[in-house]
Amino acid sequence: MGFKEQYGPWAVVAGASTGLGAAFGEEAAKRGIDVVLVARRTALLETTAEAIRSRYGVKVRTLTADLAGSEELLRGIEGLDVVLFIYNAAAEPQGLFIDESLSGLRTNIDVNCTTPTVVSHAVANRMVARGSGGLVLVSSTGALQGIKVFAAYGAAKSYELILAEGLWDELREHGVDAFSFVVGATATPNFLENAAAMTPDADLLSELISQVGASALEPRSCEFVAAALFQVLDAGRAGIGPRHYSHPDDESAAVAAAGTSRAEVVSRMGKITSAFWQ
Amino acid sequence: MGFKEQYGPWAVVAGASTGLGAAFGEEAAKRGIDVVLVARRTALLETTAEAIRSRYGVKVRTLTADLAGSEELLRGIEGLDVVLFIYNAAAEPQGLFIDESLSGLRTNIDVNCTTPTVVSHAVANRMVARGSGGLVLVSSTGALQGIKVFAAYGAAKSYELILAEGLWDELREHGVDAFSFVVGATATPNFLENAAAMTPDADLLSELISQVGASALEPRSCEFVAAALFQVLDAGRAGIGPRHYSHPDDESAAVAAAGTSRAEVVSRMGKITSAFWQ
Repeated sequence: MGFKEQYGPWAVVAGASTGLGAAFGEEAAKRGIDVVLVARRTALLETTAEAIRSRYGVKVRTLTADLAGSEELLRGIEGLDVVLFIYNAAAEPQGLFIDESLSGLRTNIDVNCTTPTVVSHAVANRMVARGSGGLVLVSSTGALQGIKVFAAYGAAKSYELILAEGLWDELREHGVDAFSFVVGATATPNFLENAAAMTPDADLLSELISQVGASALEPRSCEFVAAALFQVLDAGRAGIGPRHYSHPDDESAAVAAAGTSRAEVVSRMGKITSAFWQ
Repeated sequence: MGFKEQYGPWAVVAGASTGLGAAFGEEAAKRGIDVVLVARRTALLETTAEAIRSRYGVKVRTLTADLAGSEELLRGIEGLDVVLFIYNAAAEPQGLFIDESLSGLRTNIDVNCTTPTVVSHAVANRMVARGSGGLVLVSSTGALQGIKVFAAYGAAKSYELILAEGLWDELREHGVDAFSFVVGATATPNFLENAAAMTPDADLLSELISQVGASALEPRSCEFVAAALFQVLDAGRAGIGPRHYSHPDDESAAVAAAGTSRAEVVSRMGKITSAFWQ
């Protein structure tokens, strides 16, 4: 079965106005699949949609939805034969947990836990009835250990990571490929905007570079990361596991971390975030 | 600083009417600390409280609260000098994800993600102001990989696991010990009730026993597991890391899992749950 037969006619990408989500939409379009791009910002969505439409000649719909809830998204894809669903939306609260607002902590759970759960439940049921499909929850290397400055964010991305792994095991016998996609530092517009406003702690930074190498701190391009996800899908069902990474180095780092103490793993990640967010 | 100075006068255990939570309350009382036991079932709470009170002579309060919300708990501990907080409450949805009710999936997030977040935020702020304290989120070996039949539960316990690890790094410089406590199969009343109603698949079970050994499938007693948590606290601040396990075997299994493929790790866990919940 070809890519389009397995994962078409419609792909839905949630969190798709710019950056990584837009790049996922482009990869789907490149394979002849029609795409629904979902996000909050209508104007940006339209621009992205038009670019993909004109480049690949597939149908591209936009759907304006606040992913702190799931109603708008579910209503927007009602009756649509969604066969590939990629949840890339994320709330990213930053700062020490004790200083966070309760509403920020709740939005983190809404966007990163509740909405992917409710929407996955709906689309997984439709895919199981159809006997094929792909369901990808985009997680983060920040989910692999506690992460200072992003403690609640890391926790919520871990929810997605482990949910998707469980869905892989439950859905594969129904012809449905569910998995988590663990993304390392990526040069999204958000990331670049944050980075431009930062003055990293020089001492911490050079200590880090000596420990993990400068390349481990370099963000990858959205195009690279999106291509990595679609390479997993391209390779066919047999090769799909519960968890894939945006780069082999991220996977190696995760495996290596198991051989060291949690205190060291968490402290090292904390040094990285502290170097930038003092 | 002794145990009582570091973690007294008051310990609060959420999810404490029976089983593991009651055993945590008992361990705290044994060390001369006054205890608040929190759960939904008032009569059971009172019985447990009276047993601990008469045995150890400490103050034991009960607080009836539905932990799908945080208001009752927060109101009940207002003005109390809470220095040890153990969140042991859990919703445990069982069954295939696609068959779950949306309300069950939401309660799972409420009890296992939102309430521990909101309450941890409140008590962590008070502990930081005080300059000491302990904050423990009880997680599960089911959080370490996707878990068939308990996919949403495992995801939510993973949220707690990674949140607590991040809090360890953020709070330790303030004199506060936060960590996750990863619990393997434990003979709680819930567990025993479930087990009594089950007729495990004999073939799958013997395959499992040949792979992981019969002892890995034996639940540990609540007393054993509660003692393991308090041994972490007894040993003093310097030895507290972001994650502790209820038994060294659970930690060894987690470390060993990193050397194998995620497909194998998740499949193996899925065989265990499938053997019992067909």
